[in-house]
Amino acid sequence: MGASVTIDGLQYANWSEKIFRQMRAGGVDAVHVTIAYHEMFRDTVLNIERWNRWFERFPDLIVQAETGDDIRAAKAAGRTAILFGAQTPAPIEDDIGLVEILHKLGLRFMQLTYNNQSLLATGCYEAEDTGLTRMGREVVEEMNRVGLVVDMSHSAERSTLEAIAHSARPIAITHANPARWHPAKRNKSDRVLRALAESGGMLGFSMYPHHLKGGSDCTLDDFCAMVADTAEVMGVDRLGIGSDLCQDQPDSVVEWMRVGRWTKKIDYGEGSAAAPGFPPQPAWFRDNTDMPGLAEGLRRVGFDAGEVAGIMGENWLRFYDASFGPAS
Amino acid sequence: MGASVTIDGLQYANWSEKIFRQMRAGGVDAVHVTIAYHEMFRDTVLNIERWNRWFERFPDLIVQAETGDDIRAAKAAGRTAILFGAQTPAPIEDDIGLVEILHKLGLRFMQLTYNNQSLLATGCYEAEDTGLTRMGREVVEEMNRVGLVVDMSHSAERSTLEAIAHSARPIAITHANPARWHPAKRNKSDRVLRALAESGGMLGFSMYPHHLKGGSDCTLDDFCAMVADTAEVMGVDRLGIGSDLCQDQPDSVVEWMRVGRWTKKIDYGEGSAAAPGFPPQPAWFRDNTDMPGLAEGLRRVGFDAGEVAGIMGENWLRFYDASFGPAS
Repeated sequence: MGASVTIDGLQYANWSEKIFRQMRAGGVDAVHVTIAYHEMFRDTVLNIERWNRWFERFPDLIVQAETGDDIRAAKAAGRTAILFGAQTPAPIEDDIGLVEILHKLGLRFMQLTYNNQSLLATGCYEAEDTGLTRMGREVVEEMNRVGLVVDMSHSAERSTLEAIAHSARPIAITHANPARWHPAKRNKSDRVLRALAESGGMLGFSMYPHHLKGGSDCTLDDFCAMVADTAEVMGVDRLGIGSDLCQDQPDSVVEWMRVGRWTKKIDYGEGSAAAPGFPPQPAWFRDNTDMPGLAEGLRRVGFDAGEVAGIMGENWLRFYDASFGPAS
Repeated sequence: MGASVTIDGLQYANWSEKIFRQMRAGGVDAVHVTIAYHEMFRDTVLNIERWNRWFERFPDLIVQAETGDDIRAAKAAGRTAILFGAQTPAPIEDDIGLVEILHKLGLRFMQLTYNNQSLLATGCYEAEDTGLTRMGREVVEEMNRVGLVVDMSHSAERSTLEAIAHSARPIAITHANPARWHPAKRNKSDRVLRALAESGGMLGFSMYPHHLKGGSDCTLDDFCAMVADTAEVMGVDRLGIGSDLCQDQPDSVVEWMRVGRWTKKIDYGEGSAAAPGFPPQPAWFRDNTDMPGLAEGLRRVGFDAGEVAGIMGENWLRFYDASFGPAS
């Protein structure tokens, strides 16, 4: 990837030395990794402890990052920088004080909701969307204060628009695609994408098959044409990658993501009774070593070198520089 | 206090704006504050959250410090640096991974025991002292790795000697006095003091009345003569202040310190049924504004200006520089 950084704005793999080596082989300089779905605070800390063991065990491959400069240093040292994020606000429980505690422990992204209503906002699977709750507004302000990025990837439309409006700092949708291309519940309307872009926010393009037109059969060229189309809507500087890669996970993990502890039934989410598990990845993005091919695909649809570098990581890096830590 | 720093190596006050202003008035540049006695992890985090609120509310008076340089910066900015410590290992529960987590949250001292047997070592009130436990040895190594200071203020003799021997880095007894001066259970034998000094460790002199010859009536001159005598045993560079000031606390707090949740009876610790509460402080050390008088007392017993500066804070600062963070 040369001198510009390559960043994946979201992964939740079944982490292993193999995957860390693939990150290096794919020239991936930084990855925002999910450290919690439905885990409350103590269990989230246990997940951080697990990461600390990996950092201690594989110091030549990975290193925790808390700032954009940490990512630059990791790249210079030939390591992949790991940024922590949470896909639900469960880790802060009912306690706004945990926003600063988790930021101190390195959390840099937090979704205000997963698929359901949370204490903060409404998820995209609820029938009604009441926008930010009382606590939601308070937590967004606290996240703004400490420099924890509001992520609305799984949130419903009104909640997302209210988060963009209420947040004093740009927010992110780390992993989703435009609904204009593929009208999945998790993909985003033009209205959301425009409001996101106008506020200085970022969209990370997902390569999770349920978010792709044609699912697992979506081609790289189709995907890259969608990126080019989105650049017309949002501007090319507001775009990054957020692959949502869930490499090597057993299907029990996608069930945990969807079902957590909130129901005794099975919720299939974007899947179905006939296809309850992880769908197969498209052939052109199976693991981190496919990252250079993605850059190649973007060049093929007409992006110039600077635009490709922006989408592949430089846009995220600039956003991270402005977002992690107290507002200046 | 001029250009040299003034540090109190342990306080557990009923914190308030009044006390923070007294720290400033007394020229106290840094205080190691106790954030946990018998609190397990989650409750310790709640205590940190309480401190975060104070840091946000009183930014002109106090600031959290994690390094010696943070203390220098606080002094330059006219603020008192606050260092976190725990008086028992309860905050790490049974989980060695919490050592790194709590260090990341700013913990810089942890006692391996309070008065009782812990998972790690033996406290000074137990009938038998079996030294470091299996987990104790592991935790000392982990504390060494991350730069969390082993504090043996309340530990029994053998456990303390084993901690000094097993720790690859110098340890501290943040608040105690020599037993040769006043043979309280909590004060330390010459054998411990010599081993501590030879290993590069530090002793913080306590002004808690139960640790003083004559108790609340101990005079400043008697106290300072004891410091001079200890300098003969340990060398003047190994000495600091660890006042154990528990200002404005109700007696229910000393009961919590002694009784926690481990007994249904009352344990009077260093007190008695006739005097169960906090004893009155000596007249010459009631709050942080008395700190300059203490320096004056040290000069009176014959310490030169450099030695007084060392005991009043420069020795702790040098120790902190070498102790907080990974070994270099």
